[in-house]
Amino acid sequence: MECSVCHSKLVSSTTRGISRAYDRHRSKVSSEHRALNILLVVGDCILVGLQPILVYMSKVDGRFMFSPISVNFLTELAKVLFAIVMLLIQSRNQKVGEKPLLSISTFVQAARNNVLLAVPALLYAINNYLKFIMQLYFNPATVKMLSNLKVLVIAVLLKIIMRRRFSVLQWEALALLLIGISVNQMRSLPEGTTAMGLPVTMGAYIYTAIFVTVPSMASVYNEYALKSQYDTSIYLQNLFLYGYGAIFNFLGILGTAIVKGPSSFDILQGHSKATMLLIFNNAAQGILSSFFFKYADTILKKYSSTVATIFTGIASAALFGHKLTMNFILGISIVFISMHQFFSPLSKVKDEQQNGVMELTDAQDNNHRSKDASSFINMTAGANEEL
Amino acid sequence: MECSVCHSKLVSSTTRGISRAYDRHRSKVSSEHRALNILLVVGDCILVGLQPILVYMSKVDGRFMFSPISVNFLTELAKVLFAIVMLLIQSRNQKVGEKPLLSISTFVQAARNNVLLAVPALLYAINNYLKFIMQLYFNPATVKMLSNLKVLVIAVLLKIIMRRRFSVLQWEALALLLIGISVNQMRSLPEGTTAMGLPVTMGAYIYTAIFVTVPSMASVYNEYALKSQYDTSIYLQNLFLYGYGAIFNFLGILGTAIVKGPSSFDILQGHSKATMLLIFNNAAQGILSSFFFKYADTILKKYSSTVATIFTGIASAALFGHKLTMNFILGISIVFISMHQFFSPLSKVKDEQQNGVMELTDAQDNNHRSKDASSFINMTAGANEEL
Repeated sequence: MECSVCHSKLVSSTTRGISRAYDRHRSKVSSEHRALNILLVVGDCILVGLQPILVYMSKVDGRFMFSPISVNFLTELAKVLFAIVMLLIQSRNQKVGEKPLLSISTFVQAARNNVLLAVPALLYAINNYLKFIMQLYFNPATVKMLSNLKVLVIAVLLKIIMRRRFSVLQWEALALLLIGISVNQMRSLPEGTTAMGLPVTMGAYIYTAIFVTVPSMASVYNEYALKSQYDTSIYLQNLFLYGYGAIFNFLGILGTAIVKGPSSFDILQGHSKATMLLIFNNAAQGILSSFFFKYADTILKKYSSTVATIFTGIASAALFGHKLTMNFILGISIVFISMHQFFSPLSKVKDEQQNGVMELTDAQDNNHRSKDASSFINMTAGANEEL
Repeated sequence: MECSVCHSKLVSSTTRGISRAYDRHRSKVSSEHRALNILLVVGDCILVGLQPILVYMSKVDGRFMFSPISVNFLTELAKVLFAIVMLLIQSRNQKVGEKPLLSISTFVQAARNNVLLAVPALLYAINNYLKFIMQLYFNPATVKMLSNLKVLVIAVLLKIIMRRRFSVLQWEALALLLIGISVNQMRSLPEGTTAMGLPVTMGAYIYTAIFVTVPSMASVYNEYALKSQYDTSIYLQNLFLYGYGAIFNFLGILGTAIVKGPSSFDILQGHSKATMLLIFNNAAQGILSSFFFKYADTILKKYSSTVATIFTGIASAALFGHKLTMNFILGISIVFISMHQFFSPLSKVKDEQQNGVMELTDAQDNNHRSKDASSFINMTAGANEEL
């Protein structure tokens, strides 16, 4: 390009140099980010894949001997234990001069900052009870179908709470994810329910809304709480989250014991080595979720669970010689197209320009990033709210 | 923008003026084009919607009294008749100085130029026979499912024959169209066939490939033949196409008469006023198709048929109080997302730049456009072949 008046060259080499530096910075950040995401998804797939095997092993004569409520409490305890062990390991490996992880002052300040984690902990505890209630009102297949709506509710909540922006293509991709999972599940529906056999009473609508919103709210608020205190160690955050969780679940067991009598208080009744493995697997899934929420997001967690279900389906077909149904094939095709569209650069066109600006800020205060964790949230959430 | 050396303004007003003129030209062309497309789709929906009513009326005691083969021949004759009537009307409305439509020299030259139309006419005639053969080898539900693959085959053929370019998003949209139609159809499949009950013998694969390729090839080659002689009146092109069609179908009837005896030669046997309406509707659908192929494309025709089927489904549910099935709702959601993605400007990003260049050429030779119809094909098909 040339000036039309004085014919001097107009390319500015300094601008180019800076933009190249940013490009390099950005590609380094995104490749690290991608590696972490892949690790999270692979881990999730393994844990979700082990689940049905452990459930099968936990059954005695085809049924569970333990109280389902006790599983939630024991899982929370296992997660607390894991968080403590990880904190001890992390504090041993700390370098000289770093803020000590295990000092009382750190703990008290972190506890005060992360008090928001009580909200998702309470919501998760409520959700565990809701699951039982819902199954009294609806048949399990309908509950499963309704659960799929969570994908869209999560997206709406991310938009409101995290101020995340989604392109039209990404909304369509999320709708396709919902549809894909539903198509896959339709094969397990009994004959009658395919004709929109959903209850239409006002009460049922309210129950459905609560049933879908509470766990979605829990996940999104968890993401918000974990990311808003980005400089607190994730193990410390987990300790608080699961500590609150254990308390709420314990209160639930206490309440049940008061209503139903003290026999239901014996939480270890009917457990075996297999059920302990099941609880350990549940705990590991929960911990992995917190990594998803802090370092990736709730949507990736949702896609990851879906991919895990798909691989479990394919693996069980290959191992036990099941035939793959038409529904399964159509369903997973939709899910994979949805995934490609959601994470495609094409669907992020508008965000790209903003990220460029955010990364400028990001590069400038890269050293004292831990002091300004809110910039990270802004970066992931998008700077302007789309109205 | 300013020159960094002499500080003179660099915006060229002439360039802007030209680009504005092109923008106006382009938006005028695209709004006319959109109006035509909407008209085509609405017409198609009405004709397709009338079809089941006319089929119902044509039945006597629940079955057809006429030979199905005779319907094809009579339909071709009706189309020929319609083309002649339209040609007469068009030639009466011709202005002084225009090339006469009905002169023998015009006719002979057009016939020579449009000899390619014999190819789709032959393919359509073959397809009419194939339909009967396929139903001997597969059950009707499987045939219906296999027919859905045509969407993708048509896209591949458009890429090869018309050199059309599709973005990744458009390929995904076409895959979604195929999946959406399949999900919708699954409700009509018998229980056993959902478990991938497709035949797996080599012969079946070959039959399937032929069954899917022949009609797709017919449509795409029809589009190619109609567009490559863009300056020939569409009614004259129709006259040739359906003339060839009538000849090929007549040869088929002759062949049947030789094999089965002269009784099958009585093509008017069992027809009533209702069957004549059915034939008239078939003919109108065929003529509308040729408008799709010449002024829009085969993909829009495919989407149009799908939307027509959806509206018929909704209308019959509203009129006869059928319940909408889960399959139907999931299926049409996929189809509408697919349609939005296929025609979204986002999916045409790469083509936009090329169209800009094409329209430059287009505007320059706008007056002698009829002499250079190939530029229109290039414009619609995209200039470079994507390898």
